[in-house]
Amino acid sequence: MAIKKKGSKKEEPIILVTNDDGVAALGIRNLVEAVRGLGKIVVVAPDKPQSGMGHAITIGHPLRLYEVELFEGIKAYSCSGTPVDCVKLAVDKILHRKPDICISGINHGSNHSINVIYSGTMSAAMEAAIESIPAVGFSLMDYSAEPDFKASRHYARLIVEKMLRKKLPQHFLLNVNIPKADITQLKGYRICKQAYAKYQEKFIERKDPHGRSYYWLTGEFVNFDRSKDTDVWALANGYVSVVPVEFDLTDYGLKQKLEKDWGESK
Amino acid sequence: MAIKKKGSKKEEPIILVTNDDGVAALGIRNLVEAVRGLGKIVVVAPDKPQSGMGHAITIGHPLRLYEVELFEGIKAYSCSGTPVDCVKLAVDKILHRKPDICISGINHGSNHSINVIYSGTMSAAMEAAIESIPAVGFSLMDYSAEPDFKASRHYARLIVEKMLRKKLPQHFLLNVNIPKADITQLKGYRICKQAYAKYQEKFIERKDPHGRSYYWLTGEFVNFDRSKDTDVWALANGYVSVVPVEFDLTDYGLKQKLEKDWGESK
Repeated sequence: MAIKKKGSKKEEPIILVTNDDGVAALGIRNLVEAVRGLGKIVVVAPDKPQSGMGHAITIGHPLRLYEVELFEGIKAYSCSGTPVDCVKLAVDKILHRKPDICISGINHGSNHSINVIYSGTMSAAMEAAIESIPAVGFSLMDYSAEPDFKASRHYARLIVEKMLRKKLPQHFLLNVNIPKADITQLKGYRICKQAYAKYQEKFIERKDPHGRSYYWLTGEFVNFDRSKDTDVWALANGYVSVVPVEFDLTDYGLKQKLEKDWGESK
Repeated sequence: MAIKKKGSKKEEPIILVTNDDGVAALGIRNLVEAVRGLGKIVVVAPDKPQSGMGHAITIGHPLRLYEVELFEGIKAYSCSGTPVDCVKLAVDKILHRKPDICISGINHGSNHSINVIYSGTMSAAMEAAIESIPAVGFSLMDYSAEPDFKASRHYARLIVEKMLRKKLPQHFLLNVNIPKADITQLKGYRICKQAYAKYQEKFIERKDPHGRSYYWLTGEFVNFDRSKDTDVWALANGYVSVVPVEFDLTDYGLKQKLEKDWGESK
């Protein structure tokens, strides 16, 4: 676990790479290749898929961490915990310092609109941003077994280069989604807001051999947000969506209203 | 699963109660008692503790749902999934409609400041708010096995009564934390913002009998936020903290900055 301190190699930035599909996923291999050469890359990712884990952390049992040889010339570790655990462990036990940037993905499947909340990809990036590490999550809107990551690699490198170029605001965090399209069909990226769009869930009820019910979660995606500056609009119109994300969830509008309406009270 | 439709009993509101400590926890029993009489109560809660599950959902395997008799005169179900799963299942398979309010807790332990993101208690409430169901999560800052819920019950009832009294804005969501204190010592509630305060994590490394390392997550709570309108300030000063929460995570300040600095690009 000999990670050189910043300064030892003329300020080469340390790039922490993680994901939620697991260390063996195609997406993280493509992300590593996308940023190769931009800094000292260290991979710490879950040892198994963790999709839909949200901002889960492991508190009830201990974590394991193993060095793996999956990326040529790059230190990589698999972790028994969640994406958030990976970031915490990387900082405390592998790097022994904060990396200069944390990148997460490339997720197999989209994380636009409200899905930012459920996304393990974004929760890892958010964990980094909370720790004042500039961070970005990348997701490709393609659920096939062998997606074409070419456009994703191009935009991942472009955005990471931009992020490394100048000092960024504290808690800098981006949610980047890439449409399933040939790179020549894409119009570029667009800075967007999170759309109010979500899955309308339904559960499919089935019976087990003992006649007892069980339920599978399914759903249909519905966009309730008609404005044109959303990620959903951008993605539907051939753009890569870039949503700046914050973790202060205070609803300041409602706060003001309640201060007036509810006041203080015993 | 015969839940009467709204209107069948003169608009008696339907109150969905859930939590993340599990259906058998003391906290949810106290929450049910706190709101008894304010509407038709239905409980759908995890069958085991789910603390730290964040906004996790279950997508890789099916869910089970069993009716349980734990609350006198109240329909209650235990669910094999996460708090978010409980809310989704309750709406789709038990109530067959949206409840008038969703209340979550009373959590054994605090969920103030940044912990709103990790909290299963709040993720259940947030799931409801996303579905336009007014929602609130309650957490008591007491980790003991048999906490005194008296003050929590008092404020839970007060706040739920307030919420049921008038039509609320869409996506109304509150994060309420109650200090560990005798009710006579509390000064009332205060509308607050989320503090930038968080655990500074450390992992404790141990060796298993085979000489391999494993890691336990531990941490110390640090408040970086010196302003007086935060939940951390309120709780330290004898108030119940009430933070209005939103799920649009767009950082609009950063969005504006990036639109200028980054523009659009191939």
